[in-house]
Amino acid sequence: MKTLKTLEALATRLLEIQRINSAASVLSWDQETYMPAGGGGARAEQIATLQGLAHRTLVSPNTERLLGNWLDLGTGQPLEQDGELWDESSRALLREVWRDYSRARKLPSDFVTTLSRECSLAQQVWAEAKEEHAFQSFLPNLRTVLALKRKEAEFLGYRDSPYNALLDVYEPGSTIGALRPLFAQLKARLVPLLKRIQNSTVKIDDGFLFHAYDQARQLEFGRLVLIAMGYDFERGRLDLSAHPFTTSFHPTDVRVTTRVSEYDLPSCLFSCIHEGGHGLYDQGLDPLHFGTPLGESVSLGIHESQSRMWENCVGRSRAFWRFFYPILQATFHHQLRAVDLEQFYSVINRVKPSLIRVEADELTYNLHIMLRFEIEQDLIEGTTKPEELPEIWNHKMQEYLGIVPSHDGEGVLQDVHWSMGAFGYFPTYTLGNLYAVQFFDQARLEIPHLEDEIAAGQLMVLRRWLGQKIHRWGRMFTPDHLAQRVTGVSLSPDPFLRYVERKYGELYQLQTKQE
Amino acid sequence: MKTLKTLEALATRLLEIQRINSAASVLSWDQETYMPAGGGGARAEQIATLQGLAHRTLVSPNTERLLGNWLDLGTGQPLEQDGELWDESSRALLREVWRDYSRARKLPSDFVTTLSRECSLAQQVWAEAKEEHAFQSFLPNLRTVLALKRKEAEFLGYRDSPYNALLDVYEPGSTIGALRPLFAQLKARLVPLLKRIQNSTVKIDDGFLFHAYDQARQLEFGRLVLIAMGYDFERGRLDLSAHPFTTSFHPTDVRVTTRVSEYDLPSCLFSCIHEGGHGLYDQGLDPLHFGTPLGESVSLGIHESQSRMWENCVGRSRAFWRFFYPILQATFHHQLRAVDLEQFYSVINRVKPSLIRVEADELTYNLHIMLRFEIEQDLIEGTTKPEELPEIWNHKMQEYLGIVPSHDGEGVLQDVHWSMGAFGYFPTYTLGNLYAVQFFDQARLEIPHLEDEIAAGQLMVLRRWLGQKIHRWGRMFTPDHLAQRVTGVSLSPDPFLRYVERKYGELYQLQTKQE
Repeated sequence: MKTLKTLEALATRLLEIQRINSAASVLSWDQETYMPAGGGGARAEQIATLQGLAHRTLVSPNTERLLGNWLDLGTGQPLEQDGELWDESSRALLREVWRDYSRARKLPSDFVTTLSRECSLAQQVWAEAKEEHAFQSFLPNLRTVLALKRKEAEFLGYRDSPYNALLDVYEPGSTIGALRPLFAQLKARLVPLLKRIQNSTVKIDDGFLFHAYDQARQLEFGRLVLIAMGYDFERGRLDLSAHPFTTSFHPTDVRVTTRVSEYDLPSCLFSCIHEGGHGLYDQGLDPLHFGTPLGESVSLGIHESQSRMWENCVGRSRAFWRFFYPILQATFHHQLRAVDLEQFYSVINRVKPSLIRVEADELTYNLHIMLRFEIEQDLIEGTTKPEELPEIWNHKMQEYLGIVPSHDGEGVLQDVHWSMGAFGYFPTYTLGNLYAVQFFDQARLEIPHLEDEIAAGQLMVLRRWLGQKIHRWGRMFTPDHLAQRVTGVSLSPDPFLRYVERKYGELYQLQTKQE
Repeated sequence: MKTLKTLEALATRLLEIQRINSAASVLSWDQETYMPAGGGGARAEQIATLQGLAHRTLVSPNTERLLGNWLDLGTGQPLEQDGELWDESSRALLREVWRDYSRARKLPSDFVTTLSRECSLAQQVWAEAKEEHAFQSFLPNLRTVLALKRKEAEFLGYRDSPYNALLDVYEPGSTIGALRPLFAQLKARLVPLLKRIQNSTVKIDDGFLFHAYDQARQLEFGRLVLIAMGYDFERGRLDLSAHPFTTSFHPTDVRVTTRVSEYDLPSCLFSCIHEGGHGLYDQGLDPLHFGTPLGESVSLGIHESQSRMWENCVGRSRAFWRFFYPILQATFHHQLRAVDLEQFYSVINRVKPSLIRVEADELTYNLHIMLRFEIEQDLIEGTTKPEELPEIWNHKMQEYLGIVPSHDGEGVLQDVHWSMGAFGYFPTYTLGNLYAVQFFDQARLEIPHLEDEIAAGQLMVLRRWLGQKIHRWGRMFTPDHLAQRVTGVSLSPDPFLRYVERKYGELYQLQTKQE
């Protein structure tokens, strides 16, 4: 039997490439957290140089030779001429390396460098444009990035739509064809649910949110929750950035960021828990496999399932706050002394259409994604022009959520993704929401008294379960295979829909029509 | 005439190498400022990978071909077969590129990677060993690094001593043969001066140093001075690290660090000014030449002259404090209200043999360097074994400074340099001290009323002068040529010796024997 041992020379080569990529990630992290404003131009070039190098190394004759020893470079089939079979890990490793390699070799290295540079620059221009609500000043960069991404799709090749080529990067196997019915099912049940909630007589008093909350204490509480979740600060950090994110350079150095605002208690709180969920995944990857696909996260959708599970299934549950609310209350005694657990629970679960995706409740969140999914598809297919974006955005906001931004800063400019060239990324958020509930339902089946554990602040039991079931496997299984292994079935919107219907049915005292 | 334009393709290649090096510098900066403890192992590998890549790119056939177009790869002589001459800039660029290239090609890339990795690891072990005063636990790493550096000297080749090969890296043209008489001259006049100071009847009351000084305010004051010096925070940052340092990724992103301790006002203050001096040099390099030697600092000795000039000639002068002391007094009203300018000036210039180099006064500082210069020479030549270090250190401390550390943390383990493999670095500190005064004397001749400007807080006049005379030139001239251009003569210890004799003669009311 051929094992990972057989592939050692290949793994060493991949490790070197991963180290270059890790270095680029450190530079990006610094760009978002500490880099002085003037350093942006040089930084874009540094990152582009590293990404070009990583790409050139992956598609170099040396790597090709190492790969060609073990698989058919054209089809990716592992070679077994000697009759000796590959074990499961090696087979998975070859499958995933070939996926990366065959994708990479379709892209010229110069193109990779250019794309990286233009995205870094566009991101910097976007940040300023967002601040100043000035879509027009971002438009030229958006055009450049969009043109490059359309070119990338052409390089990669696709079926049906160039958008499929980009989707597949973030969520292997995902296609418009599979996503559309998913979104349709969600829309069909979420929109009526939203209507019923809006007609509910339950009124939630959120007055306490308008108090000032000391920022340092907010961060301290965020750290406390991260520690309780099992996020290891010996192998991680919590910093501030305009947009919360998680990045990993190695399982021993995984960093999360948050933002904090005196008049927005939930923002820091839930972004800490959310990014902590991502962080646990990255800290839970097997360091022995670092550098190869077996040491990497499987897809963005699965990654997002970890953050959303912690943020929503755990962090917006009664059980969680049964333990943590007394601590929060003691931390902000003055602001929260008259607010009981039930009121707090209601407020953090309140459903209300809002302009900003990252602040959306669990129900309307997916409508934000649907809108972006549709728009970016049209942009990539060329049926929408970049200059039409603000109008289309506002129109769809009216249609799906019934509200319209007062300026582009809280509208089409709110997200960083398009400036980074991350077209095809948004749908993974909804996949994450669905996977999250499906996995969490399974965790409740398998972990005895999970709710009681959570209510006792014992969050580690869930982290351990996730580590065993998901984190440690890296890209050993495809996302779909992983879902089947963990939950017995492929991804389905039903667990999520049942979850929101039950949760909000109870919170808003909705009549159950049938049953 | 052939110009820099002719060398454009070569410059582009060098730029790419420089970007890899800049990326490695970002990773090192992060390691010293924000990296979580667990990330050290992976970080060492990332930096080693980048340094290996930079090295491989420099000695690659592609670079060689670009270089070989314009110079004789064996001798470094610019080719002028077509009869067309090179202008001064191109000639300098070729001279310096060849210096780097011919050095690099003597080292195998694997060796560069190994050296980088071992130094990163040794640095991490050293930091812990220092904390715990445990020389023995650092000894194995020191042995490894020392063996590699001795091997490096063999690769590079040398005259007289392998130490010369290492010296030349930091201070082009410098040799033991030239340094020894310099140190002898210093010793001959500094040691008697120190004796006279110690016999002086002048007693300096430093009681105010033992108060507590709020750390945030110390940092705020440090920032204020940096801004007054012209350090540009749009292109820089001030962070905390165990050991203050300056690093540059590009003239648009130059970062300084300091340390701050509640009971050590001078530490934060003078390290801010010191690193600010380094920072001004790096921010003052010509960004148009970034990537080539013309965009790099000329030597560590010249670099240190900038930091020491600002720290000592400016930052420990009466003129400087005439402006800044009232601000400092207002910042720390309670602690300083009863301390007048003259007392403050005396205390920050007090001469007293001490254990820690970076806290030494201007006079004894060079004795600390002399000790290290002698020891590291013997280490590299093999006449001293690493395990003998603590004993030799303590013995020399007794001999030169009359005091002995109570543990290795404040003795042989105090400096990071040897753990980083930076043998040959220390002498550049003394060169910096000497250059600093020589340059500053010249600045006083050329800038009208420099002292009055400084006393009015107008520090920019000096920064501009340094920018014109030194910073903007990069490696256009050798250190010696630069000294001659700026001051009319080569480096001499006389200006420095006159400066300390005058300064301390006045402060300690020493009898002038002759004159």
